[in-house]
Amino acid sequence: MSYNSYGHIYRTTTWGESHGPALGATVDGCPPGVPLTPEMIQVWLDKRKPGQNKNTTQRNEPDAVKILSGVFEGVTTGTSIQLMIENTDQRSKDYGDIAKTFRPGHADITYHQKYGLRDYRGGGRSSARETAARVASGGVAREALKHLNPGIEIKGYMVQMGDKKIDRSRFDWDTIDQNDFWCPDTEMAKEWEDYLTFLRKDDHNSVGAVIEVVARNVPAGIGAPVYAKLDTDLAAAMMSINAVKGVEIGEGMAAAALTGRDNADEIFFENGEVRYGSNHAGGILGGISTGQDIVVRFAVKPTSSILSPRKSIYIDGTPTEVITKGRHDPCVGIRAVPVGEAMAACVVLDHIMLDRAQTGGERGQIG
Amino acid sequence: MSYNSYGHIYRTTTWGESHGPALGATVDGCPPGVPLTPEMIQVWLDKRKPGQNKNTTQRNEPDAVKILSGVFEGVTTGTSIQLMIENTDQRSKDYGDIAKTFRPGHADITYHQKYGLRDYRGGGRSSARETAARVASGGVAREALKHLNPGIEIKGYMVQMGDKKIDRSRFDWDTIDQNDFWCPDTEMAKEWEDYLTFLRKDDHNSVGAVIEVVARNVPAGIGAPVYAKLDTDLAAAMMSINAVKGVEIGEGMAAAALTGRDNADEIFFENGEVRYGSNHAGGILGGISTGQDIVVRFAVKPTSSILSPRKSIYIDGTPTEVITKGRHDPCVGIRAVPVGEAMAACVVLDHIMLDRAQTGGERGQIG
Amino acid sequence: MSYNSYGHIYRTTTWGESHGPALGATVDGCPPGVPLTPEMIQVWLDKRKPGQNKNTTQRNEPDAVKILSGVFEGVTTGTSIQLMIENTDQRSKDYGDIAKTFRPGHADITYHQKYGLRDYRGGGRSSARETAARVASGGVAREALKHLNPGIEIKGYMVQMGDKKIDRSRFDWDTIDQNDFWCPDTEMAKEWEDYLTFLRKDDHNSVGAVIEVVARNVPAGIGAPVYAKLDTDLAAAMMSINAVKGVEIGEGMAAAALTGRDNADEIFFENGEVRYGSNHAGGILGGISTGQDIVVRFAVKPTSSILSPRKSIYIDGTPTEVITKGRHDPCVGIRAVPVGEAMAACVVLDHIMLDRAQTGGERGQIG
Amino acid sequence: MSYNSYGHIYRTTTWGESHGPALGATVDGCPPGVPLTPEMIQVWLDKRKPGQNKNTTQRNEPDAVKILSGVFEGVTTGTSIQLMIENTDQRSKDYGDIAKTFRPGHADITYHQKYGLRDYRGGGRSSARETAARVASGGVAREALKHLNPGIEIKGYMVQMGDKKIDRSRFDWDTIDQNDFWCPDTEMAKEWEDYLTFLRKDDHNSVGAVIEVVARNVPAGIGAPVYAKLDTDLAAAMMSINAVKGVEIGEGMAAAALTGRDNADEIFFENGEVRYGSNHAGGILGGISTGQDIVVRFAVKPTSSILSPRKSIYIDGTPTEVITKGRHDPCVGIRAVPVGEAMAACVVLDHIMLDRAQTGGERGQIG
Repeated sequence: MSYNSYGHIYRTTTWGESHGPALGATVDGCPPGVPLTPEMIQVWLDKRKPGQNKNTTQRNEPDAVKILSGVFEGVTTGTSIQLMIENTDQRSKDYGDIAKTFRPGHADITYHQKYGLRDYRGGGRSSARETAARVASGGVAREALKHLNPGIEIKGYMVQMGDKKIDRSRFDWDTIDQNDFWCPDTEMAKEWEDYLTFLRKDDHNSVGAVIEVVARNVPAGIGAPVYAKLDTDLAAAMMSINAVKGVEIGEGMAAAALTGRDNADEIFFENGEVRYGSNHAGGILGGISTGQDIVVRFAVKPTSSILSPRKSIYIDGTPTEVITKGRHDPCVGIRAVPVGEAMAACVVLDHIMLDRAQTGGERGQIG
Repeated sequence: MSYNSYGHIYRTTTWGESHGPALGATVDGCPPGVPLTPEMIQVWLDKRKPGQNKNTTQRNEPDAVKILSGVFEGVTTGTSIQLMIENTDQRSKDYGDIAKTFRPGHADITYHQKYGLRDYRGGGRSSARETAARVASGGVAREALKHLNPGIEIKGYMVQMGDKKIDRSRFDWDTIDQNDFWCPDTEMAKEWEDYLTFLRKDDHNSVGAVIEVVARNVPAGIGAPVYAKLDTDLAAAMMSINAVKGVEIGEGMAAAALTGRDNADEIFFENGEVRYGSNHAGGILGGISTGQDIVVRFAVKPTSSILSPRKSIYIDGTPTEVITKGRHDPCVGIRAVPVGEAMAACVVLDHIMLDRAQTGGERGQIG
Repeated sequence: MSYNSYGHIYRTTTWGESHGPALGATVDGCPPGVPLTPEMIQVWLDKRKPGQNKNTTQRNEPDAVKILSGVFEGVTTGTSIQLMIENTDQRSKDYGDIAKTFRPGHADITYHQKYGLRDYRGGGRSSARETAARVASGGVAREALKHLNPGIEIKGYMVQMGDKKIDRSRFDWDTIDQNDFWCPDTEMAKEWEDYLTFLRKDDHNSVGAVIEVVARNVPAGIGAPVYAKLDTDLAAAMMSINAVKGVEIGEGMAAAALTGRDNADEIFFENGEVRYGSNHAGGILGGISTGQDIVVRFAVKPTSSILSPRKSIYIDGTPTEVITKGRHDPCVGIRAVPVGEAMAACVVLDHIMLDRAQTGGERGQIG
Repeated sequence: MSYNSYGHIYRTTTWGESHGPALGATVDGCPPGVPLTPEMIQVWLDKRKPGQNKNTTQRNEPDAVKILSGVFEGVTTGTSIQLMIENTDQRSKDYGDIAKTFRPGHADITYHQKYGLRDYRGGGRSSARETAARVASGGVAREALKHLNPGIEIKGYMVQMGDKKIDRSRFDWDTIDQNDFWCPDTEMAKEWEDYLTFLRKDDHNSVGAVIEVVARNVPAGIGAPVYAKLDTDLAAAMMSINAVKGVEIGEGMAAAALTGRDNADEIFFENGEVRYGSNHAGGILGGISTGQDIVVRFAVKPTSSILSPRKSIYIDGTPTEVITKGRHDPCVGIRAVPVGEAMAACVVLDHIMLDRAQTGGERGQIG
């Protein structure tokens, strides 16, 4: 157990506050012999980096990762890897009011109640900047996966902003990286752009989103009962991301409305391989992968930091109104895409390693 | 880490298969001095017990719990508690076909692929019978909570069956225990009854459900960043229950459709206490409790065991059709209510203990 | 983390008190496909069983183990294994004084101070009966090792009783199982026998012992830095056994008196294999196995329950003298031999699994 | 579980290699509100620092610690603390031979066999430099202990070098900090000095040592059965330190030679407090503290890096002789003193927190 860690074997402990000198991830349990350079990690941090377009916060940080340990002559040594990201854009300012009030929707008040004090600069530890450390660890996990199971692919994208959902019939895998929203539906991407401009400029408001992450080519047999289930760990991984309020596997909440006949993923055997007629299960049965696409979705609430005034209190209990000025994403869901991908990569790697421990990676045969 | 355990400090390891001699929970970390008798646990097992009405499986088991350790002269000693439930209704029968085929929607195929073998009798370890062990541990957790924080109340109920959702305007806390569905909306309970009769008798089908669990009077300040978040552990707890495909905290997936202005839970201070204008957050901010009701929901997929034929294969790959005869719940969601409650009780207790470790239970003052 | 568990991947949680209805071990993480019957475990319990000769306690229990889960058709399924041993020789008696006083050298007083209460019947949870559960889990571990690494052999024996140490020049591996003391030196075994008779009959006293456990044919490369070291886990495993006060690897405490030149295990390469000129290291360098014999020793203090009066107090603080009548081993070290073996088996298996997780069991080549 | 971590609640993960850019400790679970500055930690690092006198390695590093997270306005926030020590004295040199041979007594060969590669610069991860990170974490633990239990004192000292043991009748607590060896016996300190000069200058050799660490004023009731025992965790903590081969609690290995009558620590009640007639137990019964001094000892083997040639092999198996030039301590035991203290501080804090989780720190009364 530890408060700021995740993973069983491939285990990440994150550290650092929004406005401290640095933040990072201590990664334990990585397999040895994995080729790893800062550039391989940086590409994912760049994807998450703020200030890339007008739809995300204008905080401007390079988020350059340094590897301080665990890599020698370009490959991992099997010992703990320290990934550090220095904070460079800590604008000095007067935190007077933020220090004494609680921003609605933020963890200001709960941190205060729990710890009796808090680092109020930019949310301190509860800032979404912490997710940069996860993305860094996810970058390592991706390289380790490439080393152990070259075919596995992990990809995230946004499927809903506010009440505007993508049209699955227009789903195009290739357009995901070609718009500001990691949106697989080009038409919807345009609609979102207009909507976000309105929210930001006119409405002084923000909006939530749903992100979907797919892990392809994960072999069947990964996962475990009863609490180290693959879906349990994916749910925990996603729910642990800032602002996430719901997690779904496969059909998710919609499974409630299905009947057993409709929900059954029928099983076939073709060309020496198991095939399924559908994937309502999202690639997981009994906590163990089926070999189909693993599909996980999560909902991100709207950014709590908005320019519209909300009622709150000072630490002494007197009432006030809070308007959060500053550089905030009107839709944090956008930048949650690479975070969700990173968490999925960490979980999948962790479970492949867990499985090796118990079964040696051997599989029961069919056919 | 262990595959079949959950909890950081209050830690439950479950064991046992559907048709083995017994199943149970090994509970470690329970506080000492908690009054505990088998009867206190039995009441919750009875709530989950099969065969109570025509809407649940007709398997008939007393599910009588025995306390084999950790209790002396009526109170817990602080050492590990063994809770055993003997299986008494293991009808001997010919498992021939079940042993060689994979039931669609079940973990038969993934267990086979992972372990190279499986206890095929009634689903073995992947059977929902395993949840009886969780309910037993939850019963202990409830008594420990009563001992440590007497005001805390944990209650679950069904809010949706198939596409039929309760009408929140008719929500009546008092009716929950008065119908077969733990439904807070009497009118909807009647509708569900008819629907279930149709599914069972005429349609040979099953249906999914959504369960909501509320934890009241949990003090503010329970939980922790970044991965021992209260919502992370609740999400993991619920997702680890058999057949669960989605988990929500507060607004859940619907948070995606909200704007920041609407989603903000405004903060007030009245009569020396913090109050909120709403509870979109479901009682958790930054992974830490606000003191409001903690609200978690989860979706249970329709029972995979149905009387309608579904396509599948034999272990050797040849095609077949599977019809699952036997004593199966047409809506497993009903019996998932006490399981969800039990998991919530375990998580809340665990986090109260975790919090004591770090802060001694002291709280930052407001006002 | 949990209070009553050990092991990272192959994880044992023990439960039960000396005079409760039963005790046992919940074993999680065992590899699937390991042939396992109660008889395979029973042989080790029989080795530890009380009442076998006049040198050990005359408590008479069959210590028959039942496998309640995790095994199907004679092989492990990969799910949690419940091993239960029913207590059958719980003589009912008046515990009046034992309930109110603290036996010197026992955990009576510390349990009382920690938990505010204790199961005083026969020491309750702190009784050495708890080690039966470890021996049961060790029996499973031995079968799993046989399945994964057939050549590994784990053997314990006594090397010292009181101040009487074996003569290493008379060491005979074959005599270990042929005397009541698992002593590899037949002459010393006779001396111990006389000494123990004197202690028991005339001196009303007890004595300590040193046990050595050797694990042979463990491949090089098992273990890990920095805290999951093989020697760290062996030290913890042995120190966790009741009454153990010291643990040594290889030269142990005597390493302090050596010089670097003498202590160096020189390295050779012969017939395609690494060889060492000596084994001062006890088979472990940097927490990782060298492939040589792994040698661990531990000291067991003299039995605290003796017929000679010792000063103590009542719970209310008033002074008293305690004489512990009953069925106690004059040298608990004897029965600690199978316990030490069991712990070593658990640790070695656990580390082989841990190693598979990270490296897949692949080894760096030499030569 | 994680490979490079220790502690249940107060959990330290260390990272970094001897000749990498930096090393450090990621500390999770520290209580909030603990006053903490780099200076408070630096004092302990200075104690361990190389190059302080001619008896320790002449490597010259400031070992200056930076706190990168978890502290705000001079107090801990309850979130993860990153402690970084930059490596400044990484003399560039030709590692040619070291890269291709295995130094006897070092982990070169086992790391190679396990991971297939190793950071050969100065021992890489297996270097004793890693212990600087533990000392840093121990410094934090000391401040946390001061905050939670002000009376607790933790002190280490050397009691044996080679075969030269201190005379306990000359034991003087006050002289410990007044000689180069943390020796409580001034006369012996002089003898050691001469001996070490001989080893270094004339004999080109090294020697082992025994260190004792005492924790005073730890309240009774800290610790737990069966595997989270206080002595179990102390044994693991000490055995995990580089070059340690044996660990003892109280009488340690010598307990084997005692009889039950002699070993019994008789119990008294004086002036409203429990007193003991002796402390053979080393302050721990049944894994739980008695309130007496907690006494742990460990043996450190002689430095493996010596100027005398030892036989070894190249990676390709061809024979060679290794002479380890460079800046090495002739008796690493000296600098192991602050490391042992640090580990003891971490374990004691961890167990006080663990105890709070389960019992809330309440104690069973006596008298």
